[in-house]
Amino acid sequence: MKRDVIIIGGGPAGLVTATTAKKTYPDKEILIIRKEKVGLVPCGIPYIFGTIGSVDGNIMGTKPAENLGVEFMTAEVTSVDFEAKIVETASGESVQYDKLVFATGSIPVIPKIEGAELSGVYAVPKNKEEIEKVYEAAKKAHNVIIIGGGFIGVEVGDEIRKMGKKVTIIEAKPHLLPAAFDESFGKLMEENLKEKNVVVMTETLVTKILGTDKVEGVELSSGEKLSTDMVIFAVGYKPNTELVKKLPIHLGYSGSIWVDEYMRTSVKDVFAVGDCAEHKDFFTRKPSKLMLASTAAFDARVAGANLYTLKVVRENHGNLGVFSTSVEGLTLGAAGMTYKTACEEGFECVVGEAKSIDRHPGTLPDKSSLYVMLIFSKESGILLGAQIAGGKSVGEMINILGLGLQMGVTANDLVTMQIGTHPLLTSAPTVYPIITAAEAAIRKLRAE
Amino acid sequence: MKRDVIIIGGGPAGLVTATTAKKTYPDKEILIIRKEKVGLVPCGIPYIFGTIGSVDGNIMGTKPAENLGVEFMTAEVTSVDFEAKIVETASGESVQYDKLVFATGSIPVIPKIEGAELSGVYAVPKNKEEIEKVYEAAKKAHNVIIIGGGFIGVEVGDEIRKMGKKVTIIEAKPHLLPAAFDESFGKLMEENLKEKNVVVMTETLVTKILGTDKVEGVELSSGEKLSTDMVIFAVGYKPNTELVKKLPIHLGYSGSIWVDEYMRTSVKDVFAVGDCAEHKDFFTRKPSKLMLASTAAFDARVAGANLYTLKVVRENHGNLGVFSTSVEGLTLGAAGMTYKTACEEGFECVVGEAKSIDRHPGTLPDKSSLYVMLIFSKESGILLGAQIAGGKSVGEMINILGLGLQMGVTANDLVTMQIGTHPLLTSAPTVYPIITAAEAAIRKLRAE
Repeated sequence: MKRDVIIIGGGPAGLVTATTAKKTYPDKEILIIRKEKVGLVPCGIPYIFGTIGSVDGNIMGTKPAENLGVEFMTAEVTSVDFEAKIVETASGESVQYDKLVFATGSIPVIPKIEGAELSGVYAVPKNKEEIEKVYEAAKKAHNVIIIGGGFIGVEVGDEIRKMGKKVTIIEAKPHLLPAAFDESFGKLMEENLKEKNVVVMTETLVTKILGTDKVEGVELSSGEKLSTDMVIFAVGYKPNTELVKKLPIHLGYSGSIWVDEYMRTSVKDVFAVGDCAEHKDFFTRKPSKLMLASTAAFDARVAGANLYTLKVVRENHGNLGVFSTSVEGLTLGAAGMTYKTACEEGFECVVGEAKSIDRHPGTLPDKSSLYVMLIFSKESGILLGAQIAGGKSVGEMINILGLGLQMGVTANDLVTMQIGTHPLLTSAPTVYPIITAAEAAIRKLRAE
Repeated sequence: MKRDVIIIGGGPAGLVTATTAKKTYPDKEILIIRKEKVGLVPCGIPYIFGTIGSVDGNIMGTKPAENLGVEFMTAEVTSVDFEAKIVETASGESVQYDKLVFATGSIPVIPKIEGAELSGVYAVPKNKEEIEKVYEAAKKAHNVIIIGGGFIGVEVGDEIRKMGKKVTIIEAKPHLLPAAFDESFGKLMEENLKEKNVVVMTETLVTKILGTDKVEGVELSSGEKLSTDMVIFAVGYKPNTELVKKLPIHLGYSGSIWVDEYMRTSVKDVFAVGDCAEHKDFFTRKPSKLMLASTAAFDARVAGANLYTLKVVRENHGNLGVFSTSVEGLTLGAAGMTYKTACEEGFECVVGEAKSIDRHPGTLPDKSSLYVMLIFSKESGILLGAQIAGGKSVGEMINILGLGLQMGVTANDLVTMQIGTHPLLTSAPTVYPIITAAEAAIRKLRAE
């Protein structure tokens, strides 16, 4: 058996590589080999617990790819012969390829602490069978402790709360969502969750998981003990490089697969995309820990288009994190660097902040307050990062600033930005907070 | 009496000029002179009829300006002596100024057709007393004909429908919203309104308004007669230049006040902003008919910052229309040129279209379909215009493309754009329609 392109992995990275490749090179035969018959929408996983209410409601469709003629095979790839250009599966099947793409994704990090192996201790895995176990356990649990207050911890926490469970989120850093947001935004999320009776503990380390057979509690660094009947680790993911570790392919210093600007690995005709590939930070070009479906889709568009002939315009300028998260009553968005990170990286920064509401006049229904923070380089006025808190409009509003970051937008550009506003959809044009936050930053610069 | 800066008009243009000026030049005394004690949120006016349900719910607050120290005077300015730098009011008061800003806004166009003066025939004026009369009349009416299917016609129509009235919208052009949208989007709006039992007639001209004293019907160019008990003209606005027409100040060829890049008129120390000032199109630099509160706020930020010392960075690159409109069940956004306009202006265009939904997976509640159309210059790949149909997220989504237009974004930039996506807020990253529409345009170019 031979196919022109084999993609190992059928998550967003694999699927978008396949569809982009098929659209760019319609004559090529493209095969996705994946372990499981059915894949999940990765970012939808937290919403299985409450809003969707089933694992089956969070399946990632393969129809668009199949309609284009992409083939699927359910199998575990156990080895690759880069010389012979052959992939081998656990069932002994061999498939030849012309171009190979690793899109093997990531797996949850399980901290090496005592009791992590107890029954009742889970992570948030991304495959159907595994997450079904977590969901079933959550249904039976009464008192759930989530270790880690990043996106997954916060979203899973709020969703399990919706199931009527007692939820405690424990974060080691001084505030929730510490990787993507500065403190004031992390505190907004903390307040939101506390109002809904979620217990939030920050600057708190879990040192031990207690219990004999089944989990009974956790011990904190303070010595305090909390009782629980379910623990969920939400402390991040690591690249799934189990297969490639055995192969003669270069790994980057983050442990993921090294790739060039076109997502090509150190092996000829072999590409890597998504969480298993090494990413570079947009601002510093250092390895970045970003693992987002949107980043994976971006990688995949670059790889898919460049498999056979390079298209210079599709080079990878480094990965910019553009995030959003939403719990009942609060949506947060972030793009680029936090103020903390920008300072740590050595930028001299000026910050502009503004508040407003997302409707005008304020008598209109369903309004949310908006809070925008923009971080600019003091020297150049170039935008380095943005954070927004508000209602659901934040989801697309942060993409305005994401595009701005990618195009090198400055405070002066933003202050004269021409916007569309509408009573039912946005802030008033007189107080549109991206503009007024940029104005605030400019005034600070002038005052110095 | 003397003030450093006098602003004639207290709408968004006047207010933002005042607040920007006060923030830029805190020592200057700034006075807004306006005819009425209370101003309205202009874009909120259609929503008075249904969603807000009162004129008083749509008042534009002056608190932010007052808190900064901006003064207000209720008076009608009847003449200006540019030599002596004195403004005179109807009550005989004289106020001296150092810098003067015209922000007199616009007034509804009343077509010169037979019967336009009948009782029961209204327009959509922007002052409180006048709109109150329209609202009271709408409450009593049963069968309302709206002449004009632009933004105001469509929004007022849908709102009066919510009051339980029979509504007919008559548009002369082949589809609704013809200035900002291409046909496929105008048709979506038409379908939406028809589903809600609004009668929509396109390519239809009203030639006569019938009735002896009070309106009883309208006659169409086909000769057909429709009966009605209320007619509302929504055929556009014209600059309110009643005052300046008598003064030695240059008017542009659109009839509005000529201004330079810094919103300075032909008279020293006199500025004009908003609907009464002449605008230039972003792409062609021709006079543009844009009259938007967001454009007015943009003008005002330029004028307010440049009143005393020029800040080169705040130059006006021409006005880009970024629009959004929302009726029950459909939101539309547009930025830049339509395909029709771009072709008429002489651009060779390539169009990319994509469809998606604004949630992922599709099992999540409150989802809307999304339809994106992007218009690029064939030669340069630069974005010329964008249109989006969908749910409320369109309101900020169109601002992504608005900023992109202002920064000269190309199809290649958009196709590798890094986005933030979230299950509850946006399309899936695999099918984010701004990216897939740009991809579709690129494939069309390649295929040629």
